[in-house]
Amino acid sequence: MHTVKELQDKVSDLFDTRNYLSTPSELYAPIQYSLSQGGKRLRPLLSFMACSLFGGNFKEVENPAIGLEIFHNFTLLHDDIMDQSDLRRGLPSVFKKWDANTAILSGDTMFVIAYEYVTKTNPDILVEVLRLFNQTAKEVCEGQQYDMNYEKQPVVSIEDYMEMIRLKTAVLIAAALKVGAIVSRTSPLQAQKIYDFGIFIGLAFQLRDDFLDAFGDVDVFGKPIGNDIITNKKTFLYLTAYQRADNAMKQSLDHAFAANNPEEKIRRVMDCYAQLNIRDITEQKIKELHDQSQLILHEIDRPEADKQEIYQFLNILIQREV
Amino acid sequence: MHTVKELQDKVSDLFDTRNYLSTPSELYAPIQYSLSQGGKRLRPLLSFMACSLFGGNFKEVENPAIGLEIFHNFTLLHDDIMDQSDLRRGLPSVFKKWDANTAILSGDTMFVIAYEYVTKTNPDILVEVLRLFNQTAKEVCEGQQYDMNYEKQPVVSIEDYMEMIRLKTAVLIAAALKVGAIVSRTSPLQAQKIYDFGIFIGLAFQLRDDFLDAFGDVDVFGKPIGNDIITNKKTFLYLTAYQRADNAMKQSLDHAFAANNPEEKIRRVMDCYAQLNIRDITEQKIKELHDQSQLILHEIDRPEADKQEIYQFLNILIQREV
Repeated sequence: MHTVKELQDKVSDLFDTRNYLSTPSELYAPIQYSLSQGGKRLRPLLSFMACSLFGGNFKEVENPAIGLEIFHNFTLLHDDIMDQSDLRRGLPSVFKKWDANTAILSGDTMFVIAYEYVTKTNPDILVEVLRLFNQTAKEVCEGQQYDMNYEKQPVVSIEDYMEMIRLKTAVLIAAALKVGAIVSRTSPLQAQKIYDFGIFIGLAFQLRDDFLDAFGDVDVFGKPIGNDIITNKKTFLYLTAYQRADNAMKQSLDHAFAANNPEEKIRRVMDCYAQLNIRDITEQKIKELHDQSQLILHEIDRPEADKQEIYQFLNILIQREV
Repeated sequence: MHTVKELQDKVSDLFDTRNYLSTPSELYAPIQYSLSQGGKRLRPLLSFMACSLFGGNFKEVENPAIGLEIFHNFTLLHDDIMDQSDLRRGLPSVFKKWDANTAILSGDTMFVIAYEYVTKTNPDILVEVLRLFNQTAKEVCEGQQYDMNYEKQPVVSIEDYMEMIRLKTAVLIAAALKVGAIVSRTSPLQAQKIYDFGIFIGLAFQLRDDFLDAFGDVDVFGKPIGNDIITNKKTFLYLTAYQRADNAMKQSLDHAFAANNPEEKIRRVMDCYAQLNIRDITEQKIKELHDQSQLILHEIDRPEADKQEIYQFLNILIQREV
């Protein structure tokens, strides 16, 4: 087993030395810009962690892990156009720094580059990795579509929301873990278990995001608190509040979300959330998902001692403040 | 050997029965709309023709051929956003009928579906087909970028223009032919020859497009003549005219292209083209490319009689009026 730090260094080495510049520069400069920003590099790290857990060969996990990370960054380029997001990792998004056409075409090219890396997977497992990659990519697109649909839809159930974040966020985290299992030639059952584990981790990860937007420490979080509230985003907090509110409280929520002044809007919505106990309910839900993930991790046929690194890392991830 | 008609029927069968509808419908309805429109289905037809020429198994060429056609249609969805094109095959483009976000995300999903079909290629040739597909997809993106660059660039050489249309149009036609050779397990040399043949055919095909916009018969062509002139598009005709014009004629061209009234603009530009002999020069260039393609086809190690179908079909393609 390797420590998380060792694996993080391996992942950094993989990306820091890589150069995507080519001609025409108008196409490749935005790709270089996007991929040199770093970010958490969570997905390739998870591939390496799973590979380490199952005793696989790191050389074999490198290419599909790079492919998954580039795919993830491609989705961000296109999402930022669709969501009209000007900022990404504290810097101007490609859409903002260049324009929509650049973000479309450079994004498409990143998608191809992602497949180029996946294509370098060892041939005896290539079809399995490709199928996983294709299915995941399609589901991520479906998740983004549901997310856009729900913006316009007046009522969204918690079940539908959880299914949306499963598609948009969790399946890619699960696929990153499963890739580490596949290159280690585990049994299909073990590969499925680490995938299912990843789904619960991914769901908890996204709910933690929703949570931090309202209850994060502004000094630690690094971005303004309450952005989801200001944009009327249908997060787990928002949907749970409406689900649990009686008619009078629903009216209060409607009034709060209709407020024009941003600070007043946040204050009034947070007041409703406090009355409805949304903080505890969300923390409880995250804990449930975390517990379910731990149950599955426990079932995986590897020595418990070897699972400690993953266990501790994900503990930190799910309880993170940023 | 099969007749073109037989192969066209095979290709039609492949696509006419296919249903891409799934949930969320907001994502898949535009895909179904795009892929049920038909169009020439030129690329899968070329894959089948090459497979027939090299004596391959049609069952094996189906999936990568479908993948190439879906990839081609994906590029049209994104190109129509970038070029702000409202019409595609005489119908509203996805971008126009829905919106840019729909065309981005449904396009991305089509790209994944294209890879799903390519992934179904027989495993012993999968890596070779994937590499060809990845390289082609990247080059098509590069070609689209050069095309957009050249719109803003005051001077573009004929060489640069030919390289742009090689990337944007010819490599996909060449790849479609090469796929038919790969599934037939030809030698790499034969596969390369049919690819090179396809490049010249693709270049001639695009120049014929440029030609028809100015010299086509409006009743046969089915779309208004002179659209490239109205939009100041840097076609082979435009670039050749400026390359061959003396200073006085350059001024005439500048004035003609600056005219406000579309009919007058077309009339004046066509008048310059007539003085510069652009019609003959373009026809001569197409003939040269066609001749070069025939030389390569001749070198391919198959009986000449078996090449007649391809020969005649491409003759019609390059001399087409629509």
